[in-house]
Amino acid sequence: MSLKSNPHIQHGGYDFLYHLGINTKDVDIKKLFNDVKFVCLGGSQSRMFEFVRYIGAQLNVKIGENEEPFNYAYKTDRYCLYKAGPVLCANHGIGIPSLSVVINEIFKLLFYAECKDVIFLRIGTSGGVGIDPGTVVITTNVLNGELKPIHCTTVLGRRIEHPTYVDSDLAKELVNLCPDENYATVLGTTVSVDSFYEGQGRIDGALCDYTDDDRKTFLKSLQEKGVKNIEMESIGLFSFCHRAGYKAAMISVVLVNRLVSDKPTDDDEARKDWEQRPFSIASHFIKSRLDKVEGLA
Amino acid sequence: MSLKSNPHIQHGGYDFLYHLGINTKDVDIKKLFNDVKFVCLGGSQSRMFEFVRYIGAQLNVKIGENEEPFNYAYKTDRYCLYKAGPVLCANHGIGIPSLSVVINEIFKLLFYAECKDVIFLRIGTSGGVGIDPGTVVITTNVLNGELKPIHCTTVLGRRIEHPTYVDSDLAKELVNLCPDENYATVLGTTVSVDSFYEGQGRIDGALCDYTDDDRKTFLKSLQEKGVKNIEMESIGLFSFCHRAGYKAAMISVVLVNRLVSDKPTDDDEARKDWEQRPFSIASHFIKSRLDKVEGLA
Repeated sequence: MSLKSNPHIQHGGYDFLYHLGINTKDVDIKKLFNDVKFVCLGGSQSRMFEFVRYIGAQLNVKIGENEEPFNYAYKTDRYCLYKAGPVLCANHGIGIPSLSVVINEIFKLLFYAECKDVIFLRIGTSGGVGIDPGTVVITTNVLNGELKPIHCTTVLGRRIEHPTYVDSDLAKELVNLCPDENYATVLGTTVSVDSFYEGQGRIDGALCDYTDDDRKTFLKSLQEKGVKNIEMESIGLFSFCHRAGYKAAMISVVLVNRLVSDKPTDDDEARKDWEQRPFSIASHFIKSRLDKVEGLA
Repeated sequence: MSLKSNPHIQHGGYDFLYHLGINTKDVDIKKLFNDVKFVCLGGSQSRMFEFVRYIGAQLNVKIGENEEPFNYAYKTDRYCLYKAGPVLCANHGIGIPSLSVVINEIFKLLFYAECKDVIFLRIGTSGGVGIDPGTVVITTNVLNGELKPIHCTTVLGRRIEHPTYVDSDLAKELVNLCPDENYATVLGTTVSVDSFYEGQGRIDGALCDYTDDDRKTFLKSLQEKGVKNIEMESIGLFSFCHRAGYKAAMISVVLVNRLVSDKPTDDDEARKDWEQRPFSIASHFIKSRLDKVEGLA
């Protein structure tokens, strides 16, 4: 049997998942990963380390020895890969190229492990557009840096446009799970660009060819289009998962209201508190889905 | 005085270099970094940890306490930032978006520290085109995924094309420093794309819409254009540095000959040995430049 999204990839033989440092000839991929039902991705390794401890405790499952999560990608420092029962957790670094590397290798891992009905969740951070820091955005539409719902890349020397797909039922399910009255969770459009500074209209990078007025006009125009946040990976997430046949969602907390400031908060306490919010929503979602499966059994 | 490449950035006041976790109000940036003359960048944190130990030993300068390099970016896990005398070392992660974040913050750091005549070196890994694994490529021309010498990005909702500039004198100086007869160092064109799998014509990713013949035709056409290697950051490096007014070079060792295989070596020993080669060339270059300055003094 071959992988639908790439018929060159087949069961049997071996594959070296280079950036995860996993050689399929050395491990029993199916035994290790066949029960995976959720893949949770976030930018930073330390955040995903925190998340796997959190979700492991919530699900009451083992994540390694002595509460130290086992990193399946221990042979490399490019990415981390943890597992808490049916939840696989990895960091994707910053930007779509970095995400594309790890997600291609996770897609192959899920195929070799013969996993079924897996859902991808990005639990991230972003800049808000007209909403308070600490607000969580569940993405309902995604636009690239040219404000089109497509992922542009190059293949074999040519520019290619791939469609994106955001599952609105999944987004609505997530927003209704908001477990805490202390903060707002909103549905909205996400803009996904390939830089933190210029692509997001910041004037505080080292490179900037536009004025503060240009910046304000840009951000206002995003607000008028229903854009709630800006980040650097989701157009890739929703394009790659759609092409590979997986449902995906993004749960992202905003660290700054870009209509007020370019700077994410420098309050470490507040940031850490806010970063827990996508964790909590993801956990409620995963537990509710697992409860449904157990109810059917 | 303001930064030429962004007049909004000025001396005085304070700046939070968010992804480096450095707040300029907490440290004396000029005291810490004013002597920097070289910025060495590579993808992986562990490789840059190895490099700063290597270059520190070569230059006989302190890199921290008890030979443990001090990480100036210790407040974050996004990037690392080390220093060995006049050499600043950071990792850039995978892909141009990830590189763009850290290089913007390093440009600002160099400006606040009032550094002069700084040269950027990327010491990386890549896939070779028609050359043996272990060969080192010094880039003389750089092309994007559409095989044009421009960096495409989006700014304020519009697609923008930025020129690139590769300093051919610097590239020639580097290739002539090749310190070891055990391997070849060659000048050549580098193709810089935004993915590891499709953008580089690999057929072993999870997503692939083309045939093995398409792959071969693509790679052959690159070879005919003088392309020696393919990687994921250099078009950003040569565009950003040109815009910011810095000279830059790329010294990259190839881990596979793409005309033979898609897979980088899974021989950890060989890979580690090859990764030392750009270290050695960078070190010879830095020492030769420092000797010239001392000779003038």
